Amino acid sequence: MNWVLTETAFDPKTAKAYEGLFTQGSGYLHVRGSLEEHLTDCPQNIDRLRKPTNVTAERFPETKAKWGTYVPGIYGPHPFLNWELINLPWFLDIALFADGEKLDMELSNVRDYKRELNLRTATLKRELTWCTKTGKTLNVLFERFASAARPHLFVQRLNIFPQQDLVAEVSAGIDADVRTNGHDHFQSIDFSRIDDNNLSCAVLTDGNDTVWMQTRLLSRNVGSWEWKQHEKKAEFRAQIQLSSGRPFVLEKRTAVCTSRDLDAASCKEILETACKSTYEDLHAEHCAVWEERWNRSDVVIEGDDESQLAMRCAIYHLLRAHVPNDPRVAIDAKGYAGEAYFGRFFWDTEMYLLPFYLYTDPEKARTLVDFRIRTLPGARDTAASYGYSGAKYPWEADRDGHDSCPNWQYADHEVHVTADVVYGFAHYATATGDRSFLTNEAAEAIVETARYWLQRLDWRKGDNYPSILGVMGPDEYSPITNNNSYTNKMVKFALNLAADIGSHAGASSEECGEFRRAAELLPIPRREDGLVLQCEEFEKLAEPRFEELWKDRSLPFAAQVSQERLYRSKCLKQADVLMMMMLFPKDFTEKEIRTAWEYYLPYTTHDSSLSAGVHAIVACRLGLRKQAWDFWKRTSSLDLDITHGGAAEGIHIANSGASWQVAVFGFAGLATALESDILTIRPNLPDSWKRLTFPIVWKGQQGRVEITHEHCSVTNCSNQPLEIAIWDKKAVAGPGETVTVYLQNQDNQPEPG
Amino acid sequence: MNWVLTETAFDPKTAKAYEGLFTQGSGYLHVRGSLEEHLTDCPQNIDRLRKPTNVTAERFPETKAKWGTYVPGIYGPHPFLNWELINLPWFLDIALFADGEKLDMELSNVRDYKRELNLRTATLKRELTWCTKTGKTLNVLFERFASAARPHLFVQRLNIFPQQDLVAEVSAGIDADVRTNGHDHFQSIDFSRIDDNNLSCAVLTDGNDTVWMQTRLLSRNVGSWEWKQHEKKAEFRAQIQLSSGRPFVLEKRTAVCTSRDLDAASCKEILETACKSTYEDLHAEHCAVWEERWNRSDVVIEGDDESQLAMRCAIYHLLRAHVPNDPRVAIDAKGYAGEAYFGRFFWDTEMYLLPFYLYTDPEKARTLVDFRIRTLPGARDTAASYGYSGAKYPWEADRDGHDSCPNWQYADHEVHVTADVVYGFAHYATATGDRSFLTNEAAEAIVETARYWLQRLDWRKGDNYPSILGVMGPDEYSPITNNNSYTNKMVKFALNLAADIGSHAGASSEECGEFRRAAELLPIPRREDGLVLQCEEFEKLAEPRFEELWKDRSLPFAAQVSQERLYRSKCLKQADVLMMMMLFPKDFTEKEIRTAWEYYLPYTTHDSSLSAGVHAIVACRLGLRKQAWDFWKRTSSLDLDITHGGAAEGIHIANSGASWQVAVFGFAGLATALESDILTIRPNLPDSWKRLTFPIVWKGQQGRVEITHEHCSVTNCSNQPLEIAIWDKKAVAGPGETVTVYLQNQDNQPEPG
Repeated sequence: MNWVLTETAFDPKTAKAYEGLFTQGSGYLHVRGSLEEHLTDCPQNIDRLRKPTNVTAERFPETKAKWGTYVPGIYGPHPFLNWELINLPWFLDIALFADGEKLDMELSNVRDYKRELNLRTATLKRELTWCTKTGKTLNVLFERFASAARPHLFVQRLNIFPQQDLVAEVSAGIDADVRTNGHDHFQSIDFSRIDDNNLSCAVLTDGNDTVWMQTRLLSRNVGSWEWKQHEKKAEFRAQIQLSSGRPFVLEKRTAVCTSRDLDAASCKEILETACKSTYEDLHAEHCAVWEERWNRSDVVIEGDDESQLAMRCAIYHLLRAHVPNDPRVAIDAKGYAGEAYFGRFFWDTEMYLLPFYLYTDPEKARTLVDFRIRTLPGARDTAASYGYSGAKYPWEADRDGHDSCPNWQYADHEVHVTADVVYGFAHYATATGDRSFLTNEAAEAIVETARYWLQRLDWRKGDNYPSILGVMGPDEYSPITNNNSYTNKMVKFALNLAADIGSHAGASSEECGEFRRAAELLPIPRREDGLVLQCEEFEKLAEPRFEELWKDRSLPFAAQVSQERLYRSKCLKQADVLMMMMLFPKDFTEKEIRTAWEYYLPYTTHDSSLSAGVHAIVACRLGLRKQAWDFWKRTSSLDLDITHGGAAEGIHIANSGASWQVAVFGFAGLATALESDILTIRPNLPDSWKRLTFPIVWKGQQGRVEITHEHCSVTNCSNQPLEIAIWDKKAVAGPGETVTVYLQNQDNQPEPG
Repeated sequence: MNWVLTETAFDPKTAKAYEGLFTQGSGYLHVRGSLEEHLTDCPQNIDRLRKPTNVTAERFPETKAKWGTYVPGIYGPHPFLNWELINLPWFLDIALFADGEKLDMELSNVRDYKRELNLRTATLKRELTWCTKTGKTLNVLFERFASAARPHLFVQRLNIFPQQDLVAEVSAGIDADVRTNGHDHFQSIDFSRIDDNNLSCAVLTDGNDTVWMQTRLLSRNVGSWEWKQHEKKAEFRAQIQLSSGRPFVLEKRTAVCTSRDLDAASCKEILETACKSTYEDLHAEHCAVWEERWNRSDVVIEGDDESQLAMRCAIYHLLRAHVPNDPRVAIDAKGYAGEAYFGRFFWDTEMYLLPFYLYTDPEKARTLVDFRIRTLPGARDTAASYGYSGAKYPWEADRDGHDSCPNWQYADHEVHVTADVVYGFAHYATATGDRSFLTNEAAEAIVETARYWLQRLDWRKGDNYPSILGVMGPDEYSPITNNNSYTNKMVKFALNLAADIGSHAGASSEECGEFRRAAELLPIPRREDGLVLQCEEFEKLAEPRFEELWKDRSLPFAAQVSQERLYRSKCLKQADVLMMMMLFPKDFTEKEIRTAWEYYLPYTTHDSSLSAGVHAIVACRLGLRKQAWDFWKRTSSLDLDITHGGAAEGIHIANSGASWQVAVFGFAGLATALESDILTIRPNLPDSWKRLTFPIVWKGQQGRVEITHEHCSVTNCSNQPLEIAIWDKKAVAGPGETVTVYLQNQDNQPEPG
């Protein structure tokens, strides 16, 4: 039920969007949903120089398909755009020929086409009927999965059911003639034929990692495989005799290892071990892991199939993209499903992704915060590169935590990420109840970033307070502004935390006093009437003139006007003041939030995929049910909106995280651990949803939330009492107990009294 | 006297600075002052990816020498930095070997080294005594010039005076294995041996131009030349028998043509014709052209040899870099002597270079303004690329007038260039007296740019005036500011001119009324006390904290702090408000100018080579003699300051123009034709200068100015009466007459009454 993403007809115009959406992965290894036999006339080895630009308005090459094979952590230097996640050799390759014709989704006569990604089992199936030019009919079924139980293993199966006798041919291999953003990262490529049906490919990257792939073909129907090796590709090929009504089955199993984890011998061993199991056994163990993942995290929405499927799609990619037990990497901005953001790590990690893991599987959250702690040296280097001591987390972190952002306006000015990282630490510690994390593992990073902030402050002539000048807030259409409210608020938070815990990382009480004083004095600029200003000079910007200039609202505003106009106008790319108010709701009155909503919303383009989710949550809190719903639809449909490109360049993984947050923080109204000491729910169920249930981990205790239009209940699944609040009603649920509050009116408010 | 730039010892550390300083050129062809035999271990074919960056803080490759051979107009596409002037094959090559040793300025035992660039004759000579490792002594003299009489011809001569008999070897050829900013622009390279001592090289550039070079070697002392061809280089080589006391002479003559002007046959013909003349005859006709040039433009300074030489060095490069009779190009920012600014055209053309030509040789000024008129289509395209109609002149124009600037902050925001171009038109028309230029040739460009301005205006909520928002003024350290005074003032000027002449280019009276209204309403922001603000928000910027952060004042501030700090601080790269006041002196009171001087000077880094000259002129006007002198020294010594790099990456040609302006507009106090209807002089002679004389063309009339500490006189060299003013004394000089005013006090003021 509502677990399956389906493509019902192949269309080259939308192929790339499905390819991104159907990305499969084990955490360790990720593979875009490319067709096994690929497409004619769609080379994947085209050199191009991608330029530094505003990605929102960037035009990507118009190609029908874009292979993508990624192992998090395998990076190489782009000639001038810095380090990027490398697109590795493509091992999905299985091509089928009948009577000299190649099966091709564009050129062949194909009917009954259906491709399905089952989110529950993370398994991709493609069924089709192929009518060859010679009049033969074959039913073809491709299946594949990235084994969650054996993260180095990828498993494929091809079933053919011929309706006539015919002689066919099948080939399968590995193609290393691939590019990453148009650049070839391989210093060397070595193919070996290990034995009759077994080949290996080793590439040495320009990041000096070696990646080994070993593939075995298994088929009872094939007598012998012919070996063909080209310069950058190797494959096995076999003639096969298909008999009417008798199925032909080919399995292809591939193991992938890299010098960052294992070695060539391990790769061989993993494959050999895997080849001792049947497809069914491998699939069953894979499904079991996913079953367990879903048990921890599924958000069940009854009454709205579309929302349910979109919600699960978001969670699927969040579960897939997380790299288990490896704090050497985090989750890149395209969820390891594309190259648009070079496989780098942004503030998305803390602000959009972390909460999902924090409240469903805190161990996974831990690797994300550990990534920041591990890359503190990179943050120190980044601060030093600007002439500061302390630590400045980079806008676009590569695997070493160095800033790889090729655009100075973001790298130099979007400094809020450094405070966001500290917010993430605090969120982790508070939500898990592990406060010692702040005084132990995270203490140094918190103090070092605070030291950076002290240096980044300016005391202007005539001002009796410090300022943070020349910054870009979350709204990336105002590149160099003074005292951005979001940034200042986040820095105040980070400095206060540093003052609190500084003594644990060697900060003197004097230094902690400086942190505290700066935190107190940093301004949040306001207009005379009290409106919280995005930045001091916001009202001196030009009107954006949307009516006249934003002709096609289905495209970003940035795609229709010059960056120069964006940068001098009041247009917002995304929530900025409202994002701050979402994160610090207790520090602003409802009237202030509503005033900000009314002022900024008409200026907001939502050109960023990070915008709609935040607006949905704020709308929920303001009781703006219609707008909350509209923003939810926008959030949840983004990668599913195939006709507008969807996930063509990768999954908008931050938006996936935002989708979960809208459901849980917005519609269910869960207060984060930073907002509330006890598990607090203030539901705002959309009209069409009959029931919303999800598991939750609250400070180490497992719980389950259920919301209908009639009631809201929280079940305590732990063996300790759990204090909860539903609206203002507080209660304690004993181990195994469920606390239920009955709601009355349409706004999901509890019964009075 | 004071005509010769001299290098007295070879030092690899300063070689590149001399190489740039000693650039020779015919206008058509320019060649850096490289050593004929080059240096060992200094490859010129190294590929590198130059990145888009702030050139002021950019570090160029540390190479001992950088060949440079440029034909203005020969451009090719850089992989991602847009179109650039191509460094062509290097034809200077003459190498000398004795007893197996190669003459090498670093490795050989060389004494009595002297290299001289005679500015008067534009001839480069190098003399040295070479003591070979085998104990032989040779006196060696290299001479060369780019023929001003035959602009396609380059002439070289080598004289050797052996003090013993010895067998030596000489080679000479053309090396096409060169790069431009690390990029190879040649699609093909073809060498031919035409006959025994004659070779040609044809390259097809990636800009689809063909460049032909043909070289002939002439020597009575060589029996036969051996031909050697490599993949990208070809040369002749010969053994030569040197006899004690008997000179050996080798001449090398090279003709250069391109498909933008002539063809291969012309190249051959030019060379053959030239080979019928002796070196002496060719040199004499070359010197005659330069003599005529100097007669039009020499600024004679008596009493200060250093200033005199520096002044002539500036004028030499201004005379060299101008491309005669070719409005398809202007003068690039490095004066065709280096690649740092990619051979592109900036506002330097109008504001720094044009005046020299306007007041010495107006025909040369005409090609510069014609370049802008010819590239109006490029300016239209540039406007369109931002979504505007009308014309926006590019910040970095390539030969087609398209913006090649790879840095968006300049390309998008430094919009003042569009008004500067119009100022240049007005200056040309006024200084030449050819007012019809504005209503004819320039009218369309003036109106089209005005149309762009109307669209570029913003009427902010609550303002009853239009603003120009989001601009960078001349001070490039404030990248996105509102209502920059310089920009607004220049735009007011341009809009008023468009209103005046618009009817000649099809602008309706209503449209002209809009131009006028906008010109009237555009604000010049001021502080409450009247200080003219660089931009509205200037006082909201951070203090630059020079004391603490600018440790080494011999290096630019930008080389010691991050761009991020530059961009949020009050530090100025160069004159901005003061530049405006220099250009529009009548619109500001002396008190206003002095207040601006006192306010902005402490914030000004002079990191730009465009800064010191402007400050010198304003200081002259304010009677700040000491500061005027200091800024003059700074201006005039820039390219001569070998130890700080000088002209290593090319001539700071705008600064050369500024040097002339300081002498003429500053110390002589000439009012420009835009400031004054009649030739007006207000001298401010530096103490050490005994006499300052220079020719001047004023609205078509030739004149001559002479200033001492005792008097100031203007001679009318034309056959019409010339109205003049010296300070407030007006007079009319008849044809051939000299008007003299005697000065009294130290400030060069005239006698009272």
